[in-house]
Amino acid sequence: MKIIVVGGTGTIGRAVVKTLTPKHSVITVGETRGDIKANVTDMHSIETMYREIGQFDAVVVTLGKVHFEKLNTMNTEKYYIGLQNKLLTSVNLVLAGLKHINDGGSFTLTSGILNREFIAMGSSAAMVNGALESFVKSAACEMPRGIRINIVSPTVILEAMQAYADFFPGFIPVPAETVAKAYEKSIMGIETGRVYCVD
Amino acid sequence: MKIIVVGGTGTIGRAVVKTLTPKHSVITVGETRGDIKANVTDMHSIETMYREIGQFDAVVVTLGKVHFEKLNTMNTEKYYIGLQNKLLTSVNLVLAGLKHINDGGSFTLTSGILNREFIAMGSSAAMVNGALESFVKSAACEMPRGIRINIVSPTVILEAMQAYADFFPGFIPVPAETVAKAYEKSIMGIETGRVYCVD
Repeated sequence: MKIIVVGGTGTIGRAVVKTLTPKHSVITVGETRGDIKANVTDMHSIETMYREIGQFDAVVVTLGKVHFEKLNTMNTEKYYIGLQNKLLTSVNLVLAGLKHINDGGSFTLTSGILNREFIAMGSSAAMVNGALESFVKSAACEMPRGIRINIVSPTVILEAMQAYADFFPGFIPVPAETVAKAYEKSIMGIETGRVYCVD
Repeated sequence: MKIIVVGGTGTIGRAVVKTLTPKHSVITVGETRGDIKANVTDMHSIETMYREIGQFDAVVVTLGKVHFEKLNTMNTEKYYIGLQNKLLTSVNLVLAGLKHINDGGSFTLTSGILNREFIAMGSSAAMVNGALESFVKSAACEMPRGIRINIVSPTVILEAMQAYADFFPGFIPVPAETVAKAYEKSIMGIETGRVYCVD
């Protein structure tokens, strides 16, 4: 299969690439590194990227920033960061990808544990994850040509735990390699509209 | 209790007002009708509204537009309609309301069935509902002073069924009066972070 990993140079992305590479043709997309460089927060960049790559079988999206701050000092602009950078970037990669993906192909997005378990300063992450998972379930019902869409919701990643441990008290981290298996399951399996929780 | 019903002139809002009025002091807010007129999609209008009302015990939010369209012709701008008009308007009513709500007060927002059951053209509604429900669950954990926050997720409303029947094949509508009871449960109960499904 020809598989695009957007965010393929991040912690999860690298593990996904490593898992898929032995059996598939993997194209990594990053902002400053990767086989293709693209600023995927911009729809025109996304369209250019897809034209450059041509027909493909699967896209994995493992990127997106959200803003972490206490609820009582959050505001509209701070919620927009996650809505634009993670939610709508992922959605745009799906909408534009539909024009180039092969019949029976798949989209696999990424949410995260923070709409199942809650932490201080996590209200924007919860919002974005909930939006993405509900979008995926609904979009799965409208996908044409046997195309599937799923989402992986990992807990905190072992390799990132040093930076985030104070924000995730008592959370048991999962190695990126384990999380990567959920993406493989989504791409190679037959399910659609699924949230694959890894925790 | 002093209770504000934002969207109190809509189908659900009117039923909520009718249910609460016998026992409570209810203030309805609408764009063109109601005890107070305010364009709550604008944060300055929200702040003016809250200053005008003064201290209160509960806010109910029963408004918000989303765009309905097939997935393959949706785009960023069309998803923004729901994100701005329903998601962030509800969130802003919570954030600004925190400065004026009494200890032990409550916020009750509104989502809808379309992130549990899916219909054609419903991907934006699903996204917004999922975002709101996850926001509520997370925000509930960060509420100060014993303040609670819940959300009501109704199926299609009987009184609106004539206009929407073709979009909701096989859905069994619920009278607005029944839906209104969920808001009463949220306001008068002790739970927080709950999604009250009415279907």
